[in-house]
Amino acid sequence: MKYSEISPRRECDSISKGEASAIETELVRDYRFGQQQLIEIWGHACALAISKAYPLNSLVKKQPTVLVICGPEQNGSIGLVCARHLRMFVSPPVGIDSSMELSHSPSQVQLINDAYNLVIDAMLGPEDDVVDIKEPYAGILVTLKQVKIPIASVDVPSGWDVEEAGQDGISPEVLISLTAPKKCAMSFSGKHFLAGRFLPYDIQKKYDLNLPDYPGTDSLIEL
Amino acid sequence: MKYSEISPRRECDSISKGEASAIETELVRDYRFGQQQLIEIWGHACALAISKAYPLNSLVKKQPTVLVICGPEQNGSIGLVCARHLRMFVSPPVGIDSSMELSHSPSQVQLINDAYNLVIDAMLGPEDDVVDIKEPYAGILVTLKQVKIPIASVDVPSGWDVEEAGQDGISPEVLISLTAPKKCAMSFSGKHFLAGRFLPYDIQKKYDLNLPDYPGTDSLIEL
Repeated sequence: MKYSEISPRRECDSISKGEASAIETELVRDYRFGQQQLIEIWGHACALAISKAYPLNSLVKKQPTVLVICGPEQNGSIGLVCARHLRMFVSPPVGIDSSMELSHSPSQVQLINDAYNLVIDAMLGPEDDVVDIKEPYAGILVTLKQVKIPIASVDVPSGWDVEEAGQDGISPEVLISLTAPKKCAMSFSGKHFLAGRFLPYDIQKKYDLNLPDYPGTDSLIEL
Repeated sequence: MKYSEISPRRECDSISKGEASAIETELVRDYRFGQQQLIEIWGHACALAISKAYPLNSLVKKQPTVLVICGPEQNGSIGLVCARHLRMFVSPPVGIDSSMELSHSPSQVQLINDAYNLVIDAMLGPEDDVVDIKEPYAGILVTLKQVKIPIASVDVPSGWDVEEAGQDGISPEVLISLTAPKKCAMSFSGKHFLAGRFLPYDIQKKYDLNLPDYPGTDSLIEL
């Protein structure tokens, strides 16, 4: 299925949960990518996407604060790399405060709205079970549904099923798809970026992916 | 010492062999960078530098051929990552031929001149001993001194002493300094790039590095 069927935007194939996992296995096993290398590539691309979607001079708050919510799996590592790069995009670099204990409470929703320009959702990824979400992630999801500042999600919005379109969950303004958009991204109507230029041509052919041509030397494309 | 003393170009401090090694140790030990992550960051930046210095439409040969000479240590790994990214900058991606046995012979010099647009020298790095260069590297260096096509060196031109200026060795047209320029780069008069935006601010302060401000979200700056 192509984006073109539901939107006039750039055509791009989407992949299932199984395909996403199989492609990653091949990248590591057959193409000898290190997991750290993939995470670095993705995290850097996420930081570039955030900078494009939210240029410094467009931020509402006085300080360029961003709340990056990093989960326990790979998406969390990508979030950390993203935060590291974002920090270096600002001169002088901003500090990192990693002390916030996230959960759910109305006062925390208020605090997030007041203190941050946006939330980067790197909490749950395509490998996570969304039927039985454990704490503290279930509580954080409730908070994310209530915050008023924009959310940018990494790969799969937290709480969304990888393969299902049109979901009753958080509503990110920005989605950064990694490698190739997952099926759930087909119903996403916000600003949508793809970071997957590194994907070997033979894998693109094998999985019959019709991925867009990235401009110049960019590692990122807006779909 | 600053570039400004010997050149009107952008001011930038240089570091010794010991400082380069100490900074890398701190990045891995204290800042928890993975070696793979650093190699990915550097290799990607090298590919960007090559694309800037040698745009596709400026290449003399019909095919966008590049010979990437990868040594056995870290510079070699960076060369491999650089080659991987360069390959994806071309659409459709070009093939990789890793079968060339490099040594020294006049016919090989001729072959390189005829077949390639440029050589990326990722052979020896700052950690290599240049007093007693072993084979096949010594032979390849003789070849590199004789080739007529441009050479772009990664971090330290192969065969150069890290700390010595003005050397009787290969003459690269482009130098891509990693983290911070090494002392030997001070006498380099070609196109000089720096890839070190990721360097934590505290390390920059600790080593009293006066590094330039990178433009926008670029991971690379021309000095």
